[in-house]
Amino acid sequence: MFDVIAFDADDTLWHNEPLYRAAQHQVLDVLAHYHDRDWIERQMYETEIRNLEHYGYGIKGFTLSMIETAIELTEGRISGAEIGRIIELNREMFKAPVVLLDGVEETIRSLAASHDLMLITKGDLFEQQAKIARSGLADHFSKIEIVSVKISETYQSIAVKHEINPQRFLMIGNSIRSDILPVIEMGGRAIYIPYETTWEHEIVPEEEMAGREFIRLAHIRELPALLNELYATTRPD
Amino acid sequence: MFDVIAFDADDTLWHNEPLYRAAQHQVLDVLAHYHDRDWIERQMYETEIRNLEHYGYGIKGFTLSMIETAIELTEGRISGAEIGRIIELNREMFKAPVVLLDGVEETIRSLAASHDLMLITKGDLFEQQAKIARSGLADHFSKIEIVSVKISETYQSIAVKHEINPQRFLMIGNSIRSDILPVIEMGGRAIYIPYETTWEHEIVPEEEMAGREFIRLAHIRELPALLNELYATTRPD
Repeated sequence: MFDVIAFDADDTLWHNEPLYRAAQHQVLDVLAHYHDRDWIERQMYETEIRNLEHYGYGIKGFTLSMIETAIELTEGRISGAEIGRIIELNREMFKAPVVLLDGVEETIRSLAASHDLMLITKGDLFEQQAKIARSGLADHFSKIEIVSVKISETYQSIAVKHEINPQRFLMIGNSIRSDILPVIEMGGRAIYIPYETTWEHEIVPEEEMAGREFIRLAHIRELPALLNELYATTRPD
Repeated sequence: MFDVIAFDADDTLWHNEPLYRAAQHQVLDVLAHYHDRDWIERQMYETEIRNLEHYGYGIKGFTLSMIETAIELTEGRISGAEIGRIIELNREMFKAPVVLLDGVEETIRSLAASHDLMLITKGDLFEQQAKIARSGLADHFSKIEIVSVKISETYQSIAVKHEINPQRFLMIGNSIRSDILPVIEMGGRAIYIPYETTWEHEIVPEEEMAGREFIRLAHIRELPALLNELYATTRPD
């Protein structure tokens, strides 16, 4: 039924968001004597989103946005040593191990035996390549696409490039905005597996989801059984 | 004779290195009252190269390395306001217009009429995409590859992916290390068009070039005539 099953990576295959939240938490500790934490956090988020158009996603842009916010909200009073602490946190983020979500290794290995698997991840080319390499999962995917944004056109051009019929394309991910809605828009199928936390930027208002049909799973372990069920009910295709 | 003619982008099609050198020059102005300029410059280069393995190439990593160096060499005494100036320079780099090298527009347009052209550029995915879009050249290239590193394996996997015979692949670029030697190593042909300045990291010692055969042109305008000459002397292929 599906010629290709594609997976998102960050927070679908391995933990990612907590790394950013932990780093931000520590920056808030550094800045707490200048301002109220909630207010700083709000400023940081706004700077980060404003800078997305220049920086794209990833650790480097995130770090630059944190430094920029720290300088702005202290009107330049923050010390070089304090900014040095932010740079150090940045370095720690790059060194953080890639920790797979529970059940990912077995599920991906098992699905790879019967399906053509693809990885479609949004973010910094260099960072994503490093994470894919360290994940130990790369060999299970016949195609890996690192993209700067996940909109309907992104999936369309991937489908064209690899000669995939969108109706026989299934995407699995934790972001309704990036992994689910744009895939449905191009005529593909999507399965949503929420992660423990969702970055505010990826949250979709209820009204945007109206009429969109996708399956929601609690855990990646449920995927093989769901596929069997889908195949059993839709044959012959 | 050639199924695909591929071009590097930065400093082959448009000016890039001077943007980095100008930004660094201004950072040196900010830091000049702390240390000797030459010494700061040396430190910056070393930090930048050391961080390449985490950051890859591009403006964000470059900026983070400059901030890191500034903090280190002032032992944290640099002010937030001074670092703010570095962040500002970073923002200006992102906004800088893409300025094509002399002769590029006409040459690429003319070659695209008779050849399958490809763009292979190393660097940050998001930054390179933005530059390609702003260059106005994108439509002349049938394939665009943004890669994190340009080694022989990179070119090999591009050749495999697009089913290109390496012997019928020609690469044109300004970096002997990234555009010329790895292409020759995989069995392709390469034309070197030096740019006015070469980033120290891309310079290749003479001994590494021994026995490597490639053509050197002074200007991209000379390319169509050279191709005609090559075709005339090697027919029938």
